[in-house]
Amino acid sequence: MKPTYAELLTIGDEILFGQITDTNSQWMSQQLSDIGIKVIRKTSVGDQVNEILNAFAEAEKRADVILITGGLGPTSDDLTKPCLSQYFNSPLVMNEEALQEVTAFFKSRGRELTELNRQQAALPAACEKITNPVGTAPGMWFDRGNKIFMSMPGVPHEMKRMMRDHVLPRLKNKFELPVIHHQVIRTIGQGESFLAEKIANWEKALPEHIKLAYLPSLGEVKLRLTCYGESLEKLKEEANHQTQLLIDRIGSYIYGYGEDPIEVAIGKLLSEKNLTLSIAESCTGGNVSRMITSVPGSSAYFQGSIIPYSYEIKMAQLGIKPETLQEYGAVSEQTIAEMATNVRTRFHTNIGMATSGIAGPGGATPEKPVGTVWIAYADEQRVITKKLQLSTERHLNIQLASMAVLNLIRLGIKERK
Amino acid sequence: MKPTYAELLTIGDEILFGQITDTNSQWMSQQLSDIGIKVIRKTSVGDQVNEILNAFAEAEKRADVILITGGLGPTSDDLTKPCLSQYFNSPLVMNEEALQEVTAFFKSRGRELTELNRQQAALPAACEKITNPVGTAPGMWFDRGNKIFMSMPGVPHEMKRMMRDHVLPRLKNKFELPVIHHQVIRTIGQGESFLAEKIANWEKALPEHIKLAYLPSLGEVKLRLTCYGESLEKLKEEANHQTQLLIDRIGSYIYGYGEDPIEVAIGKLLSEKNLTLSIAESCTGGNVSRMITSVPGSSAYFQGSIIPYSYEIKMAQLGIKPETLQEYGAVSEQTIAEMATNVRTRFHTNIGMATSGIAGPGGATPEKPVGTVWIAYADEQRVITKKLQLSTERHLNIQLASMAVLNLIRLGIKERK
Repeated sequence: MKPTYAELLTIGDEILFGQITDTNSQWMSQQLSDIGIKVIRKTSVGDQVNEILNAFAEAEKRADVILITGGLGPTSDDLTKPCLSQYFNSPLVMNEEALQEVTAFFKSRGRELTELNRQQAALPAACEKITNPVGTAPGMWFDRGNKIFMSMPGVPHEMKRMMRDHVLPRLKNKFELPVIHHQVIRTIGQGESFLAEKIANWEKALPEHIKLAYLPSLGEVKLRLTCYGESLEKLKEEANHQTQLLIDRIGSYIYGYGEDPIEVAIGKLLSEKNLTLSIAESCTGGNVSRMITSVPGSSAYFQGSIIPYSYEIKMAQLGIKPETLQEYGAVSEQTIAEMATNVRTRFHTNIGMATSGIAGPGGATPEKPVGTVWIAYADEQRVITKKLQLSTERHLNIQLASMAVLNLIRLGIKERK
Repeated sequence: MKPTYAELLTIGDEILFGQITDTNSQWMSQQLSDIGIKVIRKTSVGDQVNEILNAFAEAEKRADVILITGGLGPTSDDLTKPCLSQYFNSPLVMNEEALQEVTAFFKSRGRELTELNRQQAALPAACEKITNPVGTAPGMWFDRGNKIFMSMPGVPHEMKRMMRDHVLPRLKNKFELPVIHHQVIRTIGQGESFLAEKIANWEKALPEHIKLAYLPSLGEVKLRLTCYGESLEKLKEEANHQTQLLIDRIGSYIYGYGEDPIEVAIGKLLSEKNLTLSIAESCTGGNVSRMITSVPGSSAYFQGSIIPYSYEIKMAQLGIKPETLQEYGAVSEQTIAEMATNVRTRFHTNIGMATSGIAGPGGATPEKPVGTVWIAYADEQRVITKKLQLSTERHLNIQLASMAVLNLIRLGIKERK
């Protein structure tokens, strides 16, 4: 089987000049890799006609699939569409369906369709229009001589929607791709090197056609098995077998599999056990609640939170005893235990969680340096408290503490009688 | 003056396959842009000799400066050095100074120098060694026929140290560079095409040496002026003059300049006017509080929030009247006004904000489709309510509503007597 190669091409001065971070191409690489298409090059060029046309021609020589993002806005510095029109020698024609879609898009938002936006519906005659249900610029799919050019908006959620709904299925259909099975095992609470030591022997014994990758991110490590073969069924069996061996070794750190992040796993646990949750978050400032409520349907188990950022609010709205705050301070085991217990009682939930810490850069003392964080879990029977010593960076402390709290919910529920 | 062009080249399968995010090239672009070197292309290739050699040759045709990162590790899949050796037809020779440095580096960490690491000190004879004080792979500076090739490690802090201490000063010395001044004007509350129409005449009248770029992101649009010239002072004056003309046209949407996002601008406004803030956020689920508290020192003006995710909590913890909820529902002007007013009173703050809406996918009714959101501002004198009709996607609704609330804080404070 001939391998299928892809090149990713981003267009726009804003990426070349470093004004925005390109998060698109990493995501696209992963998606292509998952279906067996190999990315051989990534190229970024600016808003210049010659540069763009050269990049098209070079990419077409190297790759079977050229995925283009950016340069589709309505303004005069957006050149992708005129360049594609020139490259494919195909004039722009008003696409009636696209026009209806962009008109409806504006109408649904109560906004007037401007002439600039109307022109976004004019597309090269040679392309197939790909619907953009979450934005104004349609995608364009060009198929010539077994080479695919696909142009998408640079806005990440618009691009992702188009990739998932249209581009990936079309590519799978168009090219003969190898059989690949990925299995992602999601762990929380330990770092990459700790896990690597725990599973070293297992990793060494993996068969040649199964590869392991560590994908660490803030507060968690994903393990990805990539299995190459002939029969998807057989690969799935093998992946499940290997996963079972992993569970024997590091099962207590595994919170889930596949795409679902920890907040979704927590949501499932709470729903299954018919439990409700409330949170008193101080140093995390709303981030834990944001994660919990990012999950559709979370209102079934999440009752609400209080963010008591000052001493006054901790006392008046959460009933923390003034003596506790005075004697031990806000960042202490005594206060965190009261916070978790009180929010649980006041919000009438099964579980109450709490965070309090020195996120930094201010607020530190010699005994409580930046990164000192207390978290707590409370239910009908008990209170679990935990002290964390995190980093010196505010945003890291907020994120890492949030992940630790979500893990503590998981552990608390698991050990619940 | 002839412009100086740069190309950024990253080498390594881990970037092509999407296993790591490339944060280097954004930073490098900004640094080069700041000293007047224009990045005309970014290229990523994998660990393959032919791909790397081709990329070198192509880059040398296009650019004056080729900055290479990655592929300098000690293992056999690290190919940048052998490829440079081949490309410059220059054999590897042990560099005694580099050997001393890598030996000292290992000694200082109490580690044994392996043969693999020793070989990291062998460099092509044609290059100048650039010290790497924080890692084991030295940089390599090649200067031929007015083209500069500079190879650096892919580890971000090693690359940054090398760029700051050696590469940028050398480039400034080597090339005659223009004077450039950037000015970023940050707007909120209107889309790119609305702004583009409002400032079309102004944009058309911009002098040739001042360029405008639109940088839209969720809920805001940044306008960047890039001014080219001879005298920095004069460029700053011109940028300020053009900014003044922009203020005349779209001043009410401008919330700030430069690097600070809206949550920082709000924080400054609140601090300056000595005002305190509390929030009752329902549909945004903690996201507004998270943004407010992401700012160091926010505890000076932010008292806290309540996230009343259920009817019960809205009534019990926020004092929303049962009649209001029953008659108008949680997503209504009546409820949102009570929420903002009550959180302000209960938390004893100058300003109280509130959000309530159908984030989706569930919870919609024919009269209140997904994306219907009410937001409110309350202070000592008045309550402002606003209805938004956003998108069909939960995470977008949360983000866009959050940006709208932050903008409403700004507008409320501005109009405050």
